[in-house]
Amino acid sequence: MTEQALLTSALNSWKSTVERADRLFSQASEEQLQTEVAPGKNRLIYLWGHLTAVHDRMLPLLSLGERLHPELDAPFLSNPDRAIPELPKTEEIKKSWNEINSSLLAGLESFSATEWLQKHASVSDEDFAKDPSRNRFAILLSRTNHLSFHLGQTALTSK
Amino acid sequence: MTEQALLTSALNSWKSTVERADRLFSQASEEQLQTEVAPGKNRLIYLWGHLTAVHDRMLPLLSLGERLHPELDAPFLSNPDRAIPELPKTEEIKKSWNEINSSLLAGLESFSATEWLQKHASVSDEDFAKDPSRNRFAILLSRTNHLSFHLGQTALTSK
Repeated sequence: MTEQALLTSALNSWKSTVERADRLFSQASEEQLQTEVAPGKNRLIYLWGHLTAVHDRMLPLLSLGERLHPELDAPFLSNPDRAIPELPKTEEIKKSWNEINSSLLAGLESFSATEWLQKHASVSDEDFAKDPSRNRFAILLSRTNHLSFHLGQTALTSK
Repeated sequence: MTEQALLTSALNSWKSTVERADRLFSQASEEQLQTEVAPGKNRLIYLWGHLTAVHDRMLPLLSLGERLHPELDAPFLSNPDRAIPELPKTEEIKKSWNEINSSLLAGLESFSATEWLQKHASVSDEDFAKDPSRNRFAILLSRTNHLSFHLGQTALTSK
């Protein structure tokens, strides 16, 4: 099945990028998590929370259910790093990150090819009729790239 | 056609990421191109050449033809930034970048779904038989993510 092979590639790309991020963040020390990726730029801990919030938003966006941790938006999405003086504890971020990525992956792996091409939740029926490329599969590709974008930044903190 | 819609999404993701990079690099001043993404890290000009070399390598990797600019490897791929004292001129990099991305896109747009799932040139017949996910489509996704990875770094130089 050609379409199944294409979907498997895209899911593998998502999974390996999440795993790469997981190794980086989960193995970082508390001190490393406080490091900025460049002077005056986001700290690793902020990027970890930011990615967790963005992945959490994928659950309703892909009609996979309610968000698990909407409380992450204020510290990590609606506000820049350091705007909120007290961030959630590292252990809490780690728990949310694991929980969200697990739920999300179970959902992603459950979609048929036809379901992947259905509209995502942020586009109206009318707009989707005009542009059927605004589907769930496009969200998967776009969020994989979003994750790679920030991984490139975190890579600047090593050595 | 489901498979065609999946391929269109992946190609759109590639195209929009290349266009984003193109706007960033082509509009940068000579001074901006000399900026490091973080202290002691790669300069924008190096990342531009690096991405150009990596995209050039996609031509033989996807069996789309010979490389157009193998001379980019020494300054931008086999050596780190600043190892080679004299880099090619900006105008030359820009010309190669445009030429390579145009040739590549024409090739990418010519593949049928079956051709996307054929093996890429760096995997042996034997290894491909064991793992058919080592196909051209996986290269497209992986190189889109590679581009996003470095775009995330270039974003640190703005403002």
